[in-house]
Amino acid sequence: MINQDTIVALATPSGAGAIAVIRLSGDNAIIIAECHFKSISGKLLSKQATHTIHLGHIIDGKRTIDEVLVSVFKNPNSYTGENVVEISCHGSNYIQQEIIQLFLRNGCRMATAGEFTLRAFLNGKLDLSQAEAVADLISSDNEASHQIAMQQMRGGFSSEIAKLREELLNFASLIELELDFAEEDVEFADRTQFKALINRIQFILKRLIDSFAVGNVIKNGIPVAIVGEPNVGKSTLLNALLNEERAIVSEIAGTTRDTIEDEISIGGIGFRFIDTAGIRETEDIVESIGIKKTFEKIAQSQVVVYLFEADIISNDSEKSKNTKIEIEKIKNKYPQKPLLIIANKIDKLSELNKSKLAIILSAFENAHYISLSAKKGIGVDELKSQLLSFVNTGELKNNNTIITNSRHYDALNKAFEEVNKVMFGLDSGLSGDLLAIDIRQALYHFGEITGEITNDDLLGNIFANFCIGK
Amino acid sequence: MINQDTIVALATPSGAGAIAVIRLSGDNAIIIAECHFKSISGKLLSKQATHTIHLGHIIDGKRTIDEVLVSVFKNPNSYTGENVVEISCHGSNYIQQEIIQLFLRNGCRMATAGEFTLRAFLNGKLDLSQAEAVADLISSDNEASHQIAMQQMRGGFSSEIAKLREELLNFASLIELELDFAEEDVEFADRTQFKALINRIQFILKRLIDSFAVGNVIKNGIPVAIVGEPNVGKSTLLNALLNEERAIVSEIAGTTRDTIEDEISIGGIGFRFIDTAGIRETEDIVESIGIKKTFEKIAQSQVVVYLFEADIISNDSEKSKNTKIEIEKIKNKYPQKPLLIIANKIDKLSELNKSKLAIILSAFENAHYISLSAKKGIGVDELKSQLLSFVNTGELKNNNTIITNSRHYDALNKAFEEVNKVMFGLDSGLSGDLLAIDIRQALYHFGEITGEITNDDLLGNIFANFCIGK
Repeated sequence: MINQDTIVALATPSGAGAIAVIRLSGDNAIIIAECHFKSISGKLLSKQATHTIHLGHIIDGKRTIDEVLVSVFKNPNSYTGENVVEISCHGSNYIQQEIIQLFLRNGCRMATAGEFTLRAFLNGKLDLSQAEAVADLISSDNEASHQIAMQQMRGGFSSEIAKLREELLNFASLIELELDFAEEDVEFADRTQFKALINRIQFILKRLIDSFAVGNVIKNGIPVAIVGEPNVGKSTLLNALLNEERAIVSEIAGTTRDTIEDEISIGGIGFRFIDTAGIRETEDIVESIGIKKTFEKIAQSQVVVYLFEADIISNDSEKSKNTKIEIEKIKNKYPQKPLLIIANKIDKLSELNKSKLAIILSAFENAHYISLSAKKGIGVDELKSQLLSFVNTGELKNNNTIITNSRHYDALNKAFEEVNKVMFGLDSGLSGDLLAIDIRQALYHFGEITGEITNDDLLGNIFANFCIGK
Repeated sequence: MINQDTIVALATPSGAGAIAVIRLSGDNAIIIAECHFKSISGKLLSKQATHTIHLGHIIDGKRTIDEVLVSVFKNPNSYTGENVVEISCHGSNYIQQEIIQLFLRNGCRMATAGEFTLRAFLNGKLDLSQAEAVADLISSDNEASHQIAMQQMRGGFSSEIAKLREELLNFASLIELELDFAEEDVEFADRTQFKALINRIQFILKRLIDSFAVGNVIKNGIPVAIVGEPNVGKSTLLNALLNEERAIVSEIAGTTRDTIEDEISIGGIGFRFIDTAGIRETEDIVESIGIKKTFEKIAQSQVVVYLFEADIISNDSEKSKNTKIEIEKIKNKYPQKPLLIIANKIDKLSELNKSKLAIILSAFENAHYISLSAKKGIGVDELKSQLLSFVNTGELKNNNTIITNSRHYDALNKAFEEVNKVMFGLDSGLSGDLLAIDIRQALYHFGEITGEITNDDLLGNIFANFCIGK
């Protein structure tokens, strides 16, 4: 399937850089590019072999817009499966826009979000869940989410589903064949084998559905509520965690990006730190609203960290008492949530007070505690292992397929429901015609995942999440 | 000249996008890339022809980092003149960093700012002023500055200088030859022809030096002081100018960038609007400081625009009087600066008041005036032509070479000085040996421009202005 129209878009991030890449795709992409490209060699683009690069100038009439490299990809050996031209130009905003506008005036239209990947899907270069993984891959910002997206893009998940679908389809055909011979009462589909298959499908679906909780956490980061007064060293602590992890990255000038406050990656897993105020007893109405908010934030988190200054042990017994009360309050209110008590600024403490602190901390039951100095980097590694241990990364470590996409989760749940009905039908001796209906429903939901069953609305929703140019 | 080490950098703007390009350059670039690239075809990168593209995966041991396209450019047919590999990966920050770090761990080092272009210069792919034009090209954000950079990059300016240098060098050789035969009193160098050449060089240098004023304005934008009370419609006016010029650009989603407040491009020329307060008579000390600042800003500008609401003519005679006083004050203080008086919100005026306004405006001598409605777009075109007419774009229109680089300007001035000395020497019958010294000095300054004469400090300064990856 070749689209009639040729689309164009900037494929690289917007902004100035050394180079930028502008992509054209469609039946006429090469011919259109040829009209505005004067190669140094003098050869025509359309006469060139696929996967070759050509130096020359993009020209608009007599005006030279830029010296560029043009890459030619011929149908079907391209990302979209159509003819594709990639123009690598100097990375000025002005040049990017001039070239894009030149092509918009001359037979191209602007690509919509994700349209290159949509065309790749429509031309059978990717299945739907692989196409979805492309967007996940681009937005992945840590090792775990990257690994999941990569695995999905390489077809790990959808090939598993496609295989189950095929096996189920075979049985469906046999059972439907039985219906044609209904009066003869034959059984083409071996019921024992069929039950074994359904069992296997149930097992796999259950595992995939259960992986969604882990997948979601990996994709979006583990929410950690950090309870503590201002100036107890939260920022220093986050920086300490951040610096160790991203040191090499930040050494590379020009790649520094806006850091999302309080979102950091530890051992390839994203953690989202949610800042909250303390929760001391108060008569003040305004302050009690703040405390209510703190509790709401704790409720949303998966891990609670209580941060305080180690030296309150020694120099302020009132503060020390309050701290203990606050910790007990959190423990009582959220017995299920892992609680991590951190005494910061340990380096300022005398040896005597260190011992005192250790005794006080160890008195808290059902809580983990760490004394550290964020500033001096003491105890930071211990904190990292402790945070990682709160995450069930068993699934991830075993290289299992993990579901992160809520569309897949929905379809899997629906398929699971239908498969359960089939099993119930088999157990209760349901007639073949009714069984066939449930099987067809399950097949339908499998097909939704891989894209064998689609509609325009669904495709529209999926590809709207892509960036332009992909 | 092939560098021993292989450099790597992100060549596209940082941030997430559809794709990103990572560039390697150096003797071992292809071999290093080959070690971490598994092509779909199974063929080795080093066995591939130059200017070909290969689909495959970037792998780190057993781990797959991304599916990529790898472009191979072989020495000397590459940007740098060395072996170059460009890796086109999915545009996630994470993937970009993982791939760059993989190569940093395996035989590459991070490229410094402009190092790819520096290598291109050192390998004779570009002369120095062409290399400088690359940075100008990337930072160009309007048609005029783009055109100048493009012309310079294609060698227009430096080839002219190189040609003059060669001719001058010929004469220098002849004159130096005369010195060897000093006792015989011969003249190998025809003094009349030599004078003609020096005349021509003087003329060309003078033109280039003079073009710097225009070039500077084109590169940095023409400063326009806009005097006016708040709410007279300045923003609306700037938007009206901006929208007409950039309408197509802003339709392209994903390319919108942070607009630099008050900097707009009209007919390919950048204008920088400098906002100032009104300058009415006052006893208030704080306000009078503001007025002093206004005058400072006007002094820095090349054009002064006075913007007021047209309807003050009718409904507020006090305001009307003040307006007239302010305009006269500016005219008297800056008689040399073009003054443009703009009556905005003309659409709200009755026909009678329009006539009144016209009479009042025409009473101002030595000033241009325009009545317009920024909101309705009335008179905006007239304003644009008026602003453009303030700029001497003759040089630009005639496609002449224009100097924008202050390093070139300095070198040209020094060369001009030496050439003048040569001319003076010729006129006063200076001896050949003294003449030769001045000619050599002029040649030296020509060489500084094209890069035949360089030193490390100079190169360091020039390439430090580049972005990483270029």
